[in-house]
Amino acid sequence: MPLLIRNGEVVNADARFHGDVLLEGGTVSRIAKTIEPSEAPSAEVVDAAGCLVMPGFVDPHVHVHLPFMGTAAKDTHATASRAAVAGGTTAYLEMVCPAHDDSPGEALADWSARAAGASVCDYGFHLGVSRWDAEVERQLREAVAGGIRSFKVFLAYKGAFDLDDAGLLGVCSLAAELGVVVCAHCENAELVAAGQNRLVAAGEPGPASHERSRPVGVEAAGVSHFCTFLEQSGATGYVVHTSCRDAVEAALPFRRRGVDVTLETVIPYLVLDDTAAQAAGFEGAKYVMSPPIRSLDHQRFLWHALRTGEISTVATDHAPFDFAGQKEMGRPPEGDFTTIPNGIPSIEHRPALLWHHGVRSGRLDACRFVGLLSAAAAACFGLAGKGSLHAGADADVVVWDPEQTRTVSAATHEMNVDYSAFEGQELVGGPRLTIAAGVAVAERGRCTADGPAAGRLLT
Amino acid sequence: MPLLIRNGEVVNADARFHGDVLLEGGTVSRIAKTIEPSEAPSAEVVDAAGCLVMPGFVDPHVHVHLPFMGTAAKDTHATASRAAVAGGTTAYLEMVCPAHDDSPGEALADWSARAAGASVCDYGFHLGVSRWDAEVERQLREAVAGGIRSFKVFLAYKGAFDLDDAGLLGVCSLAAELGVVVCAHCENAELVAAGQNRLVAAGEPGPASHERSRPVGVEAAGVSHFCTFLEQSGATGYVVHTSCRDAVEAALPFRRRGVDVTLETVIPYLVLDDTAAQAAGFEGAKYVMSPPIRSLDHQRFLWHALRTGEISTVATDHAPFDFAGQKEMGRPPEGDFTTIPNGIPSIEHRPALLWHHGVRSGRLDACRFVGLLSAAAAACFGLAGKGSLHAGADADVVVWDPEQTRTVSAATHEMNVDYSAFEGQELVGGPRLTIAAGVAVAERGRCTADGPAAGRLLT
Amino acid sequence: MPLLIRNGEVVNADARFHGDVLLEGGTVSRIAKTIEPSEAPSAEVVDAAGCLVMPGFVDPHVHVHLPFMGTAAKDTHATASRAAVAGGTTAYLEMVCPAHDDSPGEALADWSARAAGASVCDYGFHLGVSRWDAEVERQLREAVAGGIRSFKVFLAYKGAFDLDDAGLLGVCSLAAELGVVVCAHCENAELVAAGQNRLVAAGEPGPASHERSRPVGVEAAGVSHFCTFLEQSGATGYVVHTSCRDAVEAALPFRRRGVDVTLETVIPYLVLDDTAAQAAGFEGAKYVMSPPIRSLDHQRFLWHALRTGEISTVATDHAPFDFAGQKEMGRPPEGDFTTIPNGIPSIEHRPALLWHHGVRSGRLDACRFVGLLSAAAAACFGLAGKGSLHAGADADVVVWDPEQTRTVSAATHEMNVDYSAFEGQELVGGPRLTIAAGVAVAERGRCTADGPAAGRLLT
Amino acid sequence: MPLLIRNGEVVNADARFHGDVLLEGGTVSRIAKTIEPSEAPSAEVVDAAGCLVMPGFVDPHVHVHLPFMGTAAKDTHATASRAAVAGGTTAYLEMVCPAHDDSPGEALADWSARAAGASVCDYGFHLGVSRWDAEVERQLREAVAGGIRSFKVFLAYKGAFDLDDAGLLGVCSLAAELGVVVCAHCENAELVAAGQNRLVAAGEPGPASHERSRPVGVEAAGVSHFCTFLEQSGATGYVVHTSCRDAVEAALPFRRRGVDVTLETVIPYLVLDDTAAQAAGFEGAKYVMSPPIRSLDHQRFLWHALRTGEISTVATDHAPFDFAGQKEMGRPPEGDFTTIPNGIPSIEHRPALLWHHGVRSGRLDACRFVGLLSAAAAACFGLAGKGSLHAGADADVVVWDPEQTRTVSAATHEMNVDYSAFEGQELVGGPRLTIAAGVAVAERGRCTADGPAAGRLLT
Repeated sequence: MPLLIRNGEVVNADARFHGDVLLEGGTVSRIAKTIEPSEAPSAEVVDAAGCLVMPGFVDPHVHVHLPFMGTAAKDTHATASRAAVAGGTTAYLEMVCPAHDDSPGEALADWSARAAGASVCDYGFHLGVSRWDAEVERQLREAVAGGIRSFKVFLAYKGAFDLDDAGLLGVCSLAAELGVVVCAHCENAELVAAGQNRLVAAGEPGPASHERSRPVGVEAAGVSHFCTFLEQSGATGYVVHTSCRDAVEAALPFRRRGVDVTLETVIPYLVLDDTAAQAAGFEGAKYVMSPPIRSLDHQRFLWHALRTGEISTVATDHAPFDFAGQKEMGRPPEGDFTTIPNGIPSIEHRPALLWHHGVRSGRLDACRFVGLLSAAAAACFGLAGKGSLHAGADADVVVWDPEQTRTVSAATHEMNVDYSAFEGQELVGGPRLTIAAGVAVAERGRCTADGPAAGRLLT
Repeated sequence: MPLLIRNGEVVNADARFHGDVLLEGGTVSRIAKTIEPSEAPSAEVVDAAGCLVMPGFVDPHVHVHLPFMGTAAKDTHATASRAAVAGGTTAYLEMVCPAHDDSPGEALADWSARAAGASVCDYGFHLGVSRWDAEVERQLREAVAGGIRSFKVFLAYKGAFDLDDAGLLGVCSLAAELGVVVCAHCENAELVAAGQNRLVAAGEPGPASHERSRPVGVEAAGVSHFCTFLEQSGATGYVVHTSCRDAVEAALPFRRRGVDVTLETVIPYLVLDDTAAQAAGFEGAKYVMSPPIRSLDHQRFLWHALRTGEISTVATDHAPFDFAGQKEMGRPPEGDFTTIPNGIPSIEHRPALLWHHGVRSGRLDACRFVGLLSAAAAACFGLAGKGSLHAGADADVVVWDPEQTRTVSAATHEMNVDYSAFEGQELVGGPRLTIAAGVAVAERGRCTADGPAAGRLLT
Repeated sequence: MPLLIRNGEVVNADARFHGDVLLEGGTVSRIAKTIEPSEAPSAEVVDAAGCLVMPGFVDPHVHVHLPFMGTAAKDTHATASRAAVAGGTTAYLEMVCPAHDDSPGEALADWSARAAGASVCDYGFHLGVSRWDAEVERQLREAVAGGIRSFKVFLAYKGAFDLDDAGLLGVCSLAAELGVVVCAHCENAELVAAGQNRLVAAGEPGPASHERSRPVGVEAAGVSHFCTFLEQSGATGYVVHTSCRDAVEAALPFRRRGVDVTLETVIPYLVLDDTAAQAAGFEGAKYVMSPPIRSLDHQRFLWHALRTGEISTVATDHAPFDFAGQKEMGRPPEGDFTTIPNGIPSIEHRPALLWHHGVRSGRLDACRFVGLLSAAAAACFGLAGKGSLHAGADADVVVWDPEQTRTVSAATHEMNVDYSAFEGQELVGGPRLTIAAGVAVAERGRCTADGPAAGRLLT
Repeated sequence: MPLLIRNGEVVNADARFHGDVLLEGGTVSRIAKTIEPSEAPSAEVVDAAGCLVMPGFVDPHVHVHLPFMGTAAKDTHATASRAAVAGGTTAYLEMVCPAHDDSPGEALADWSARAAGASVCDYGFHLGVSRWDAEVERQLREAVAGGIRSFKVFLAYKGAFDLDDAGLLGVCSLAAELGVVVCAHCENAELVAAGQNRLVAAGEPGPASHERSRPVGVEAAGVSHFCTFLEQSGATGYVVHTSCRDAVEAALPFRRRGVDVTLETVIPYLVLDDTAAQAAGFEGAKYVMSPPIRSLDHQRFLWHALRTGEISTVATDHAPFDFAGQKEMGRPPEGDFTTIPNGIPSIEHRPALLWHHGVRSGRLDACRFVGLLSAAAAACFGLAGKGSLHAGADADVVVWDPEQTRTVSAATHEMNVDYSAFEGQELVGGPRLTIAAGVAVAERGRCTADGPAAGRLLT
């Protein structure tokens, strides 16, 4: 059934204006100053008075299926997508993560099969590469022919996902040839491993050691290394989850010389700081992700960089591992911080957290909010129809209530994970209604989808 | 009469899409995938097949009335605005430039009176300040109450427009208080004067000395100085006509610490280089503006900075002085390069030059083109209704034909000046139709407006 | 009587070696692996076993006579020089500080007359310039002809010593022509004044406001401004009392482009931090100097910069004002932090503080210690015979005992001032013997000179 | 026989002074303003009137024995050392370069055996490491116990000498533990290989392709990578043959954070530019070394960096391969630029080239000349007795005649190689006399040593 959203203020990355929006057949068919219900008699009317009407948010960096450290992330595409739309996110890009022995082609097939028919919103893939040879190259060409728009490499995770320089150059050169983007996790694998060994050997196995085991210089070195390979190969790059000033500043001289590299940060870095993982006992394990959450100085810098445009996107690196049973694999004395599954589940609350800490606090305006959460990712990865509300755009819409309040809690969230890194935060501003492909799928933070999962693969 | 633009591709800074646009009553009333003529029976239909439909361009930095060096720029608001719309520009912001002895209030009244009823498109003002005392402060407050959104200061032009540090701090502090923007011409006045004296004394009076008299370090020093005052006062700033790498890089550390400063460059810096002013004879005088046009290295850097977003706007600093009689005031032996009226007329060809050298050459995409020419200036100076096509936006529209060709020539241009700095350039891409306030005012590069000048003052 | 220093280890900036040193007729006449007393039968033998034998230290930045804020520094050249030699300093360069209405020529005459015959060690002058006109220029040329090797300008102290851009350019251009050095106090005068007014108006008149009234950006702006003028004029520059990372980093790009600028820091910045001036009550006034003492982050950076050579000299900016009666002029409610005479007396303890916190703590080696305290200043200001022990060098020697201990206290120091900013510090390492012009003038930190003051004017 | 050098001006890195120098028993026994021949009746008197008396120069980076690309450098220690002393160099540090399959211990034994008894001046070794395992570690510990003070790693030369990240971290960590220096050739091996392959495949096999195959970004990436490993391991580092601005600037932020890294450049980069290797025909092969010789912009920057101290040493990377038969291995069509043995023989002319282009041209003073050629290398590698003339120093002395002229030519040079990269350069300034261990070994640029080779191994 068509939907007519009336009386709201449309917010795109480049402009905001009062207008009514008509959704028909899965797209935005019309935006006008006023659309009378009589002009769209078959449409259900949504009253957005007092609300902002935004393009559905895009999360360009999530993990749904993720075998990692002998366990696996808790999500299915059903659970992840329900949590996504609950928060206003109507499209996400998942990392396909083959290990060294896996082939990217088979991994892509595996990941695709898990997603097909399961997601309540649209989704796509970055195709991970952790090995380089002629067969891998052939599979990557095939994947791009099949719609893949970006590769993903890890410079970290020695022995698991990491790619050596020859492989990195191979991937970058192929990406340059094919016109696709190379995404990179930038930390020096060897230095991380050494830092971990040193701290464990020093008898400091707790979560508080995590940040010290991979300091900002190790991340900045990764960024610099990756940008060098982009420059020499001519590829377009995307640095995922930039956590600190040093990493951002490592990329800037390259951009100024014409290297086409986009920087992402993720919501935990903007809202939490390194004291979280230093909590007493093993509580800090909840906040273990890589790169680690840094000090407040870095957090402040990241907010500036969002405003100036040095960082283009705010994603999540969503990776849900339960505290009980999973994160606890790293509890000393049996475990240590290196065996804590990495990740902070945040696909659900990214928009509300960025609004509350960013827009409401005066650091960002609403247009920049849309740019960071939706438009930039859509542009970077060529997601036609996403990122902006206009005639012909996908009918992925969030009706955002700037005054809605919510207290984040694992007790009430949609995500399939037993804790929240943001437990107890009272957030002002949230989605009154999330519409995916023209259909309302969430209301006031709860997923209401009950029909067949309509999410399509983005290619 | 309403206008219905059909079959085109709408390009905003954040998205491009196929859609029809209906203009009614001076605004965009509706954008839809398809609008049948039958839905708007009173509208005249414009067929935009093969064309891009863009928000009218905004030139945030022009001079129309400009007493300078004992002469005055050739424009009236009639001539300037006709040239503007011929090229696709439907709004411009003029610098009100009181000399030390003039009061800003009276200058604003003078400039406003000249513009009223004369422009075929909308216009606004930056209010220049070249002196600081309690009366000046009072007048500035009054001007802001009356709608002025930005002040302009010159750190250069010793003895004419320059403002000392106390004045600069006064202006910045007032701007911070009132929430308006401070625009600044950033060159160190004393060093420019000394450089000029030195070269004239050395027997090098020709236009080729102009660039050497105010090298990049002098401009960078101005930017650094201005940004320091922004940081200490909390004001929002806008650096006009950034010409070189050094100037851009001077601003970046401040932005990274949270200083809100936007950088502008102007079209001559992107298309010409320092060899132009070194032409044999006195021909180089045509290319004398300040800061001067720099070497190709700097030009290349500016193009990168447009793409990365370090520079936000491309303006003109349009200032039309005839070569005969005006620029010639600086012809040796009677004159020298310091007595050449500064400026390169370019209000008319900015869009076509940026398209040809930027988009067509692959350096920029069409969305960034709109961002640089329209959206960013509208956002920076709070020009509601400009910079984006959406329901409710001003009906300022350019129908851009990417294949239209034109050869720039003073013989055919609309500008009231006897030469073109771009003479003979064959440009591909140009405005098929320019619409201001819902009325077609130019076709294929010629102004067709013949009714009363309908441009309004932007406040 | 000749002196023969035996059994010590000579430390120069470029090397250390075991050797005996013979002083005769005011110079080092010989250095040899061994000099038997029989080879110099008339010499008094000094046993330096266990000690380092260093060139006498040079303090390139002190105030002795200093009218300031309606009072004057407490020193005479007798008191200052006695304190200097007590600590191992055998030469100092005093700032001649004419106010705007004074002429530099008369000021130099005045300052010279006060020094003549009064100092127990050698001394010289930097000639301050706070006004610029043809007569001033004439006097500066005359002063250089008479032996002056450096000018001093203040970019701060609005209304007192500050020099405008025209004056700064005049001084730099003259210095470039004459081959002398321009020393500069780099803070933006206007921003300092505004910061002071703001904090006083805000009801925060205590010493704790001092640092906030002139933040690091204000100092960095001064350095950048000064370096721009050096670059444009071709002069050689010397930035006095660099207090922070921002100031150092402001100079570095200029150096990398070939600008000849040397950076100085002073001992209080290396040993104290901004919490000192935030002490309860009015105690913080003891630590008020300009630029202010910064946070520990900056202190740490300065130590790195000493090691890498980005900073070349460690001076004092010695300026002794009593706490009682003088510093107290700024005690609220009658006074405020802007009326506290600026300065921290440290001519006496600079060497021991730098040894203890620098060499003993492992941050610097002994050669670098000599470089920072003696060789670099001698080289920068052309003090022939100073800065290095070699045949023919001045017989200014410090026999340094690395194990000697002393507790700093106003109760025991030589300086003519009623407090010490380093009160209670227990320092390991100090001068066993100070020799000036071949004569022992201090022993174990006490001046022992009792004959006529033999210090000569350095030209 | 003792030597008494009279009437000269001694120049050390920190000072210059008129003094006589007495050499006895292999050391400087005395330096005095005047030493009468009667005071040293057994000494031969050298009249150094009009000359500078300097510590013998140290070349910290040479290759003597160097198997490379299937051939070997032409030198023996006899030929290399004779060429060294002819130019004023009295000590050199040779790179021991084991290939992947060689063990460092055996390589050191091999290299040592070749040198023993063959050199006319002192020599030492940097011990190369191209593989990392427990046995290698054991051998390195043994080598350090035996006197080795520095390791050398190559980040370039894929498949030959290059070391992976795990090895690099191992070497750095061991060096930090043992307190020795890590020297590194910094270029990314993979990118060099790819650049070479690309250009050869593109049909550009000539020497002119060499620089383009390993652009400045590839070198800067290496420096950044190495400095990251220094920072994380706490080791002290030394970057050999820095060729460009980008490489220097890559190191500076690390130094400013406290990383102890010293930069070396080599004489060809200061005197030649990239046009040399672009010479017509195969002539350019003479100028092929790695990193390659860069453009004049970079050369200019290097000279600035010598003056500011950002670069500490000027070495040679001496590696003599004949043009005929050796360099010609890379002549197309059989060969290409990747098969040209790398290196520019310059052990002989480094001092005269640096004097002529540096001191005589006004870029450096004589003290800095000694610092760059002698003192800094001695300090960095702990060569006691070298680098400075003082009592007890080694009797390695150069009597330098600033007016001596010489035309460089393969026809007359001492080096055992059939061409000179500096052929035909007329240099003003050169060694009148070179003294090694107290014995005159060269006069006016010709080696005169005819007794047994007296050079000792430096440990």
